[in-house]
Amino acid sequence: MKSVNIGVDVGGMSIKAGVVDSKGNILFRNTRKTNQKEGQLAFLKLIKEQLIELINIAKENDLKVTGVGFGIPGVVNNKLGTIDYACNLGFEYVPLKEYLKDLGVEIYLSNDANVACLAEQKFGAAKGKSDVILLTLGTGVGGGVVIDNKLFEGIEGKGAELGHHVIVVDGRDCSCGRKGCFEVYASASALIYLTKKIMYEHKESLMWEYANNSLDNVNGLTSFECAKKGDKAANIVVDTYIKYLGEGILNFCNIFRPNVVVIGGGISNQKEYLLNKVIKYCEDRHYGYRNSPKVDIVIATLGNDAGIIGAAHLLPYKDE
Amino acid sequence: MKSVNIGVDVGGMSIKAGVVDSKGNILFRNTRKTNQKEGQLAFLKLIKEQLIELINIAKENDLKVTGVGFGIPGVVNNKLGTIDYACNLGFEYVPLKEYLKDLGVEIYLSNDANVACLAEQKFGAAKGKSDVILLTLGTGVGGGVVIDNKLFEGIEGKGAELGHHVIVVDGRDCSCGRKGCFEVYASASALIYLTKKIMYEHKESLMWEYANNSLDNVNGLTSFECAKKGDKAANIVVDTYIKYLGEGILNFCNIFRPNVVVIGGGISNQKEYLLNKVIKYCEDRHYGYRNSPKVDIVIATLGNDAGIIGAAHLLPYKDE
Repeated sequence: MKSVNIGVDVGGMSIKAGVVDSKGNILFRNTRKTNQKEGQLAFLKLIKEQLIELINIAKENDLKVTGVGFGIPGVVNNKLGTIDYACNLGFEYVPLKEYLKDLGVEIYLSNDANVACLAEQKFGAAKGKSDVILLTLGTGVGGGVVIDNKLFEGIEGKGAELGHHVIVVDGRDCSCGRKGCFEVYASASALIYLTKKIMYEHKESLMWEYANNSLDNVNGLTSFECAKKGDKAANIVVDTYIKYLGEGILNFCNIFRPNVVVIGGGISNQKEYLLNKVIKYCEDRHYGYRNSPKVDIVIATLGNDAGIIGAAHLLPYKDE
Repeated sequence: MKSVNIGVDVGGMSIKAGVVDSKGNILFRNTRKTNQKEGQLAFLKLIKEQLIELINIAKENDLKVTGVGFGIPGVVNNKLGTIDYACNLGFEYVPLKEYLKDLGVEIYLSNDANVACLAEQKFGAAKGKSDVILLTLGTGVGGGVVIDNKLFEGIEGKGAELGHHVIVVDGRDCSCGRKGCFEVYASASALIYLTKKIMYEHKESLMWEYANNSLDNVNGLTSFECAKKGDKAANIVVDTYIKYLGEGILNFCNIFRPNVVVIGGGISNQKEYLLNKVIKYCEDRHYGYRNSPKVDIVIATLGNDAGIIGAAHLLPYKDE
């Protein structure tokens, strides 16, 4: 029997798992809806049952599952295999690896953005590149780092928290407890905050019409869509957002000097429009440092599958 | 004959070289004064002559020099072995490796702070630690990174420019062309700038007496020495400086989550006094992230020898 791994993408609403081959193909999948109110034990039981189902499906297809990797929306301890803190799940110190030990497979936990970075580097937008930074621009800003073809995680797997580096000392409050984190200026939430602020100052803006005259209807598209139509206030929002995003990317150019920065998450749906602006911002500033090599900036290509594929590839493929 | 390497610490004023054994001992040394006005070729000839002298001394002592490593105060290309930009030397694109090829030894160039980081990780303040950040707080802020016991340099050796990550978007101008870099707030030059600014606002401060009533006499000691004597204005300077330094260190905790941050350079002469304040600042903020492991913060111990020792250890020791 050929060996394969399972990748599990743990989210606040659902747990998506898949049997993944060494080429990054998802062969079989299943999904479970989560319910935080049912508590930690229910969560663990749900995952175990879900995994047993997939392991059996694999076996019926002459595949032996030897490893299960997890992408966790929060902070893990990759040595102990625990979820140490995951705000969206509402749990702390969940002994996931310990709980699953009787499955007889290797278990590895990592942060969800790390896992997405690994997937994009092996099979997606950064395929074939040795040094990769991934930024997911969603509710927060997730960060993943591949150095010399290897996922970089830091002690206990608690590094690569790229959204939580301060770019404005004494800036706006961040959920992490610090002030002025990159996440506070470059996430989709930050874009929405900024959109509302500029709308308030520009009653003439097209953004009001787009949002049906209510700030409650503002979302991550409002400013971008109106900026494309030439609205001046919307362009202020987009340019300001690009500045903060660009400064963060330039920081990572200087700190890591990677081959490529991959942008994922909701905001990345703006594709070329976003990319052209960010690339111009970084080009104008020599990618952070004069006489430094250009850093490619690209949009993630694996979409929602990145989590499952990357998680599966946290562990070695024995048949390779 | 036993194999050894030479380490070369290239500075703006002098070139210090040494034959270094695999245990980090400097066996023989020589130094040359540099003169920028004489140009690039004179600089290259000087280094070659200096190296030949050391290679001969080694040979007389039954040691065969197999590698020469360089710590360069600027930006190198570690693939080509060129000095791409070094403001203190006044040169661009110096083909150092090419020029030295007839010495018949392996040549490797890295940035000076990288080299110091490697030395401290192998033989100094961070000995035995796998993941290390070094910050040299001098005229600028140099940065070095060791990940999993290996020097991390980024593409072409142009990463780990830790001084040039922006911590204040739209902040003060940096020599690199960006605004608000860590270096602009955490270098010795930044401390002196801040000291003068606060002195100007506090005519009653003891710092005026310490500086003989002239801003021209202000140096990196002024604020620290007067703060120790309880001067209020001096304490404002020190606390502000610690805040910026601390925020940068917390950024590196979140980005790299190392075991230890080593502080070197002129400001590190403040030893325990500096350390206690920085550690308290970072402890109060959970080293960047709740439920994250503590990161040790220590003072560099190898002093001026770190450059020679680290440069020599850029290359493998064949007898090990």
